[in-house]
Amino acid sequence: MTGILAGLRIVEGSAFIAAPLGGMTLAQLGADVIRFDDIKGGLDSDRWPITKDGRSIYWAGLNKGKRSIAVDLRNPRGHELLTALITAPGEGAGIFTTNMPARGWLSYEELAKKRADLIALNIVGARDGSAHVDYTVNAITGFPMVTGPVGHDGPVNAVAPPWDLATAYAGALAIVAAERHRRMTGQGQRIVLPLQDMALAATSALGYIGEAAVNNVDRPRFGNEIFGTFGRDFKTKDGRFVMICIFSDRHVDALAEAGGFAKAFKKIEASKGVDLKTDAGRWTARAELCAVIEPWVAAQTAAEVSAALKKAGALWAPYQSFRELAADKANVLDNPMFTVLDQPGIGRYPVAATPFQFGAFERQRPRVAPTLGQHTDEILSGILGLSDREIGKLHDDRVVAGPQ
Amino acid sequence: MTGILAGLRIVEGSAFIAAPLGGMTLAQLGADVIRFDDIKGGLDSDRWPITKDGRSIYWAGLNKGKRSIAVDLRNPRGHELLTALITAPGEGAGIFTTNMPARGWLSYEELAKKRADLIALNIVGARDGSAHVDYTVNAITGFPMVTGPVGHDGPVNAVAPPWDLATAYAGALAIVAAERHRRMTGQGQRIVLPLQDMALAATSALGYIGEAAVNNVDRPRFGNEIFGTFGRDFKTKDGRFVMICIFSDRHVDALAEAGGFAKAFKKIEASKGVDLKTDAGRWTARAELCAVIEPWVAAQTAAEVSAALKKAGALWAPYQSFRELAADKANVLDNPMFTVLDQPGIGRYPVAATPFQFGAFERQRPRVAPTLGQHTDEILSGILGLSDREIGKLHDDRVVAGPQ
Repeated sequence: MTGILAGLRIVEGSAFIAAPLGGMTLAQLGADVIRFDDIKGGLDSDRWPITKDGRSIYWAGLNKGKRSIAVDLRNPRGHELLTALITAPGEGAGIFTTNMPARGWLSYEELAKKRADLIALNIVGARDGSAHVDYTVNAITGFPMVTGPVGHDGPVNAVAPPWDLATAYAGALAIVAAERHRRMTGQGQRIVLPLQDMALAATSALGYIGEAAVNNVDRPRFGNEIFGTFGRDFKTKDGRFVMICIFSDRHVDALAEAGGFAKAFKKIEASKGVDLKTDAGRWTARAELCAVIEPWVAAQTAAEVSAALKKAGALWAPYQSFRELAADKANVLDNPMFTVLDQPGIGRYPVAATPFQFGAFERQRPRVAPTLGQHTDEILSGILGLSDREIGKLHDDRVVAGPQ
Repeated sequence: MTGILAGLRIVEGSAFIAAPLGGMTLAQLGADVIRFDDIKGGLDSDRWPITKDGRSIYWAGLNKGKRSIAVDLRNPRGHELLTALITAPGEGAGIFTTNMPARGWLSYEELAKKRADLIALNIVGARDGSAHVDYTVNAITGFPMVTGPVGHDGPVNAVAPPWDLATAYAGALAIVAAERHRRMTGQGQRIVLPLQDMALAATSALGYIGEAAVNNVDRPRFGNEIFGTFGRDFKTKDGRFVMICIFSDRHVDALAEAGGFAKAFKKIEASKGVDLKTDAGRWTARAELCAVIEPWVAAQTAAEVSAALKKAGALWAPYQSFRELAADKANVLDNPMFTVLDQPGIGRYPVAATPFQFGAFERQRPRVAPTLGQHTDEILSGILGLSDREIGKLHDDRVVAGPQ
């Protein structure tokens, strides 16, 4: 295992997306990430999507390259084992990440009694301790009320969970920053990262709170249009959709070239009194731009439109379904980030490695996710130094479990 | 300036969201982040939302706590100055992040000639160098075809840009990981992070590619329902919307208590032959669950429904607009993460600090964003050691610019 974070060991007590994806991000950069779960599996062990046999494709996706230990989380002996694992000695060890309630034996105070320089990341729902998930946090941000078709009554939820994703990578950042700090000063610490505050900070960063407060307006729903510049989906002759955007001068020229729109664009500039090379100009003239682009796209197949846009270097992309993506040569099958893996119990399919390309390290191929308890014995023996007899007794007493 | 990354200096050449937000994340953790822009402003200097006077609220949101230097990016003397700034000596310096084309003088090869241990993060659109932004990458992932109301024809774009957000925090992680590595080994490196691969890796992690490949299905659109468990929006008597979810046993009981649904839930379990304490059970019986919850929510005001859900400890949240969020006491005005700042040229409004709470550091209040070129002179003098006369000449020759 070589990667930029080789030598770090992180113990993870997690479920769902933010905490597991944060841990996996570190594992795919070379850290030894050990996920513990209850011997019956975690809250997300059966989470959908599942195979026809009921195996969780979801779980496999978010736990790649980790080791798994299964422990009875209601048993005080289980707590002792995990406390020992979380606080085991070693320069790169003593790092814990969790989105479980950090109370009792899992609290920072209790754990730090065994290792004073412990680093613990507690991902929580809300600041005040109340439950929150991506979908509830998202409702509060305001985004669902401006997402979806113009005229739609009510909210439109995100499917790709923006706040879980943000919290996952931000959590990984927090751990590496804290470990760097410990390396420099010897000091450990607890880090609290509320999913809710991640969402609110990003909503603030993106200008939505400022716009509402300063301009005292509620931004309306603009459907698929990109607010404040130009971008929208267009339907082709063969019923496909393409996204076409303009973010810079270069994209104006490229789009004009792709569709032969140079004269039409000039006309729009004259009639609307705008400069299409500015965000404001494009936004003001977006209806006129669409009126030019729409019939051009509608008169051609997706293949024809794509060829023209690509050739001209426009900013565009075809929409596709997940099944089309899974079979997409350029983006998946021939993408060096992907490897077709045989995930035990699930099957062979393309799986992504880390998206980072660090110049000083070769990107490692993705590794499969463990089955529940797959590494129980090797962790008890290799890290906690337990004998075969002691490990046998823990199994007999149902304090731990191996692979089912 | 104290924070966990105090002592780091990062030079940023950026525009839009991923690169600036990544830089701001580091700045809010205590790093000295210097954003350079062309003397006419960057591609995003006027980006919407804007104030009535045309000042970019967007730019202010994504550049808080940075220093700004304005340099003529077409002038070779400007290139020399920025090269010197990026490669200036210092243990925590020599770090560069950009989403500009890393060619010519901005290429890693050229810059590393001046500082062999340089760390440079190149955020790119696509692996192959072609242009991509969040909206085009998102089209490819497959998410827009399953977002939005059931029966809707065509894609529904995300408004909160998931891939820009992911790339911002992942980029910050990459920089801290590389700086930790340099501290340990002395070795710098180039890091390439394609927005497109970030999106594809996350789509893989979330199980969508696996589901499509293994089960050979295209997941249909499920509207606002959370796939594979229970969650949906409901409309109140007074025309408001609330999101109600079930992710665990505890949420089933809490919801039952809030609405007096215990008997009704038992009936559903019996008639559908499911266990509502499982994801699969809830998903199978989601229509029946909705049939029980819908009239209960519809018969009450949002205030009444909220009080009952809150009291019972259910997993829920009210939907609100951005304007409501900006005036939201609990989430913004009384949230210790927010401070009302006077952003020069824009006005006073609540602005978020970092969402991280590091135990070893007090969270710093947010700082305003600089105006373009606000720190030009102090950077030229403080870091590059130029004399007043030399700086004066650079201004006279229009190689650099101060605040306008």
